[in-house]
Amino acid sequence: MAQVHWRCYPWLVLLCACAWSYPQPGYHGREDVRNCSTNPPHLPVTAVNTTVQLAALRQQMQAWNLTAYIIPDTDAHMSEYIGKHDERRAWISGFTGTAGTAVVSMGKAAVWTDSRYWTQAERQMDCNWELHKEVSVSSIVAWILAEVPAGGHVGFDPFLFSVDSWDDYNVEFHNSNRHLVSVTTNLVDLVWGSERPPMPSQPIYALPKEFTGSTWQEKVTTVRSYMQNHTMAPTGLLLSALDETAWLFNLRSSDIPYNPFFYSYTLLTDSSIRLFVNKSRFSPETLQYLNTNCTTPMCVQLEDYSQIRESVKAYALGNVTILTGLSYTTYGLYEVIPKEKVVTSTYSPVMLMKAVKNSKEQALLKASHVRDAVVVIQYLVWLEKNVPKGTVDEFSGAEHIDELRRNENFSSGPSFETISASGLNAALAHYSPTKELHRKLSSDEMYLVDSGGQYWDGTTDITRTVHWGTPTAFQKEAYTRVLMGNIDLSRLIFPAATSGRNVDAFARRALWEIGLNYGHGTGHGIGNFLCVHEWPVGFQSNNIAMAKGMFTSIEPGYYQDGEFGIRLEDVALVVEAKTKMN
Amino acid sequence: MAQVHWRCYPWLVLLCACAWSYPQPGYHGREDVRNCSTNPPHLPVTAVNTTVQLAALRQQMQAWNLTAYIIPDTDAHMSEYIGKHDERRAWISGFTGTAGTAVVSMGKAAVWTDSRYWTQAERQMDCNWELHKEVSVSSIVAWILAEVPAGGHVGFDPFLFSVDSWDDYNVEFHNSNRHLVSVTTNLVDLVWGSERPPMPSQPIYALPKEFTGSTWQEKVTTVRSYMQNHTMAPTGLLLSALDETAWLFNLRSSDIPYNPFFYSYTLLTDSSIRLFVNKSRFSPETLQYLNTNCTTPMCVQLEDYSQIRESVKAYALGNVTILTGLSYTTYGLYEVIPKEKVVTSTYSPVMLMKAVKNSKEQALLKASHVRDAVVVIQYLVWLEKNVPKGTVDEFSGAEHIDELRRNENFSSGPSFETISASGLNAALAHYSPTKELHRKLSSDEMYLVDSGGQYWDGTTDITRTVHWGTPTAFQKEAYTRVLMGNIDLSRLIFPAATSGRNVDAFARRALWEIGLNYGHGTGHGIGNFLCVHEWPVGFQSNNIAMAKGMFTSIEPGYYQDGEFGIRLEDVALVVEAKTKMN
Repeated sequence: MAQVHWRCYPWLVLLCACAWSYPQPGYHGREDVRNCSTNPPHLPVTAVNTTVQLAALRQQMQAWNLTAYIIPDTDAHMSEYIGKHDERRAWISGFTGTAGTAVVSMGKAAVWTDSRYWTQAERQMDCNWELHKEVSVSSIVAWILAEVPAGGHVGFDPFLFSVDSWDDYNVEFHNSNRHLVSVTTNLVDLVWGSERPPMPSQPIYALPKEFTGSTWQEKVTTVRSYMQNHTMAPTGLLLSALDETAWLFNLRSSDIPYNPFFYSYTLLTDSSIRLFVNKSRFSPETLQYLNTNCTTPMCVQLEDYSQIRESVKAYALGNVTILTGLSYTTYGLYEVIPKEKVVTSTYSPVMLMKAVKNSKEQALLKASHVRDAVVVIQYLVWLEKNVPKGTVDEFSGAEHIDELRRNENFSSGPSFETISASGLNAALAHYSPTKELHRKLSSDEMYLVDSGGQYWDGTTDITRTVHWGTPTAFQKEAYTRVLMGNIDLSRLIFPAATSGRNVDAFARRALWEIGLNYGHGTGHGIGNFLCVHEWPVGFQSNNIAMAKGMFTSIEPGYYQDGEFGIRLEDVALVVEAKTKMN
Repeated sequence: MAQVHWRCYPWLVLLCACAWSYPQPGYHGREDVRNCSTNPPHLPVTAVNTTVQLAALRQQMQAWNLTAYIIPDTDAHMSEYIGKHDERRAWISGFTGTAGTAVVSMGKAAVWTDSRYWTQAERQMDCNWELHKEVSVSSIVAWILAEVPAGGHVGFDPFLFSVDSWDDYNVEFHNSNRHLVSVTTNLVDLVWGSERPPMPSQPIYALPKEFTGSTWQEKVTTVRSYMQNHTMAPTGLLLSALDETAWLFNLRSSDIPYNPFFYSYTLLTDSSIRLFVNKSRFSPETLQYLNTNCTTPMCVQLEDYSQIRESVKAYALGNVTILTGLSYTTYGLYEVIPKEKVVTSTYSPVMLMKAVKNSKEQALLKASHVRDAVVVIQYLVWLEKNVPKGTVDEFSGAEHIDELRRNENFSSGPSFETISASGLNAALAHYSPTKELHRKLSSDEMYLVDSGGQYWDGTTDITRTVHWGTPTAFQKEAYTRVLMGNIDLSRLIFPAATSGRNVDAFARRALWEIGLNYGHGTGHGIGNFLCVHEWPVGFQSNNIAMAKGMFTSIEPGYYQDGEFGIRLEDVALVVEAKTKMN
């Protein structure tokens, strides 16, 4: 599954302006998008009336003495997918795209989102909302500065800002005479009230031993030894990303769609293990598995999820230093630790350890991929038989491959929403068919299927592009060059600790040669029954160096807007090369 | 000429440990290096007695209330090559290598330098000095923290720290309860006294019009228009790098070996042009050329070089904002500008404009390379005739190619010290033969020559590696793969604005394939009668994106320690590709 990080690839615009410039919908006269410049404005049936909730939010802002309020699209764990109860920006604005920041001032409201979502935003938002297309923090802050008078207060929920993103805002507000105010009570939640979906409460369970690479006790011991050997010898480690805690304790649940996680934090110290979670979700067996009936260093002490901030604050009062990874820790926790007691790194040691799979984890992940490959082959055979009959569409195809996966051993559902896209739909960056809106598969056009499964032993992700008739010469050439990129990068021999960003271009060169390219990342890490996009492995500038035992997807593509899309994705394991000289 | 930035390539150690691990000299029993562990210590004849100057420096430190003093290897312009009067670290420590930082405390003194210079340092330093091999700022600061008691003051000359490097130190000293103190009087200079070489005073001249791409007036107009269109609309631009001022005014001199520069700063504002330089170095014609007899916006106002800090400080009192590039501006100037009046970027707009050559500059640079190629061909023919006779050595070879260059039109000397290295010497990272120490060229071993010239129209740089007898199978394979890397990168078609770092690996892949690599950068920008290593063009992480009109060297290599070295270097121009599709 391609991670579309458009912001990382502004240079594409230069070469592929033709291929990539999204068509500006001819809004005039179109019924399906809003038109706020007419009187009365035209609103499509899909637009959400947000007048009431905006008025209520502004009342709260006034009560808290704020002249603007920032509403990001994240949760308190910087998760890629978020739960329904965290969809605050969607609820307040009507716009349900997965990326986009909203800001509400006393007189205006605005959403910033990238080109993938512009049409969707114009369909879903009413005329209370401006749509802004330049998504940088500096352009958001420029808008706020114009809206908020000097001396004004701009509120934000510190649990929805990573330390890094808070820092970005902070720099932009520097010397502006506007004050960025951390408000731990989320104002949207106050307004949302009882209509807000509840936090999940289904059981949290321990993975059977045969599906884990090490016991949680072994992992805790390794992490503690890392802390002891660290130059700053931190006494505590704070973990905020949901897959960090799930990985550390070999625990899973299903709080977030496609992700077997549960809302939690961990504060691991040299003498205690403190797991912040809704305790009522554990069975007696799991409590025993976690060794919760004691307080010695290898016992897990359960504390309530909501207590994390107060507990970190209390722990930080002692003679301690706390290590934390800046990418996944929110400002809501960071701000309660005195500066001299915090030791930071981009990623926590748990993130780095999780990235390198041991031999058992490698075997598990491979086994899941072998079974998953059987599913994909079954699906391709089924397509070959049924597409010519005209009985398959994008949606029924997606349903069929999902069903084939469900029948596999250890299946635990899809790892993301299946992308099943025929013809021109495959050129859309984020396309999934729906029961209502889909295209029929036919021998006359290309078909792209990007799908994956969650299995108890591993998470999978694969893309294939096929054509059952006669592709055009251009389609053949583009397909061949995408395949060349996939093979060139997969076969590459490189020195230990080479960064993905330094070899990313091998997946692109064959396309570059004729003036083509693709606008997404070349690949991403993947977990053992964890994230399908498992950071920090990958080919982007903020990914860590490649090491033996890491898995990454390799997925070059080519997208001809309005015509077809090609992507060929495999998951590759970094292994030691036997070279002639070294 | 290869820029050896070892610090950028720590990962090489992992793969090429055998090829790259420098042999630790067997110091025991060796006469040519010091041995401070015996009593009395053994000091080779090359060691410099630094007792007197160290005592004098410590007296100064005491007078300034400092318990440690940092002595970097730079000048006030962050020049790659520095003048004799700026060789403070060499003078105080005896160690003359071009890279290395010294720190003196009340009881100890230490030098940090990388592996290229370890043996040289052991030959040149007496036992007053410790040698440290881990050159990071954090390891220097760790040493200082052990030497300086809490509350202590650590002095530094702010003109020898770029803002970036000051920031690095500042972060490391954070919360340490030691105070980093900016002392604008250089304490080493006080001790050096009248023995310190004087500042250069030879004439500064204007380049004839046929050797410039634009007049200085055109350049000033372009820069001012850049400033006006900048989002922060700075009123002034401060230029510190010597090649920025030389380029802007089309002026040259010869203050620094191999570099046709002169000590200067420029403060270009919306209404004035202020050039800080030793005025007496201009002829009446050059003063007229610069239009110095007026004060309107297109007149150059000359101010004394030493006045830069006071003038910037005075200018900053007004209603102004000053744009400056952090990489070349020193903390000595940065600290006098109030934070809210400074606008920073990594590189100044002049650096960025200079990097893209216009059509006339391209033609000039090409012409110089064509003449230079004739020199190299003449030299290779001469070698082919004379090496078999046994009459050529590394030093006489270097002298001969330098002489051939001197005979070319518009010649202005070499652009760096010629690297003329036979056999195992070519595997040394920084080797140049001397009259006393050199190796005879022979048909039995490989020979590497890396040389370049300064011409009025352009700066050149080329490396060739040859063998007049029968190379081994391994030498042939290594040579072929180095050549493959050179060709692969030179022929690459890539999207506009691709960064060098993202394509660097194409020069390495053929070597990687058999487990080989090289430990230096793949290439660097080059100037029109300016720097041979012209930043910010190149393939490293802090280089800017490639654009049409940029020149870069492409110079993969392979070095077999103790045996041979291969490097094949050309200078390439980035041009627009005509591709099939776009």
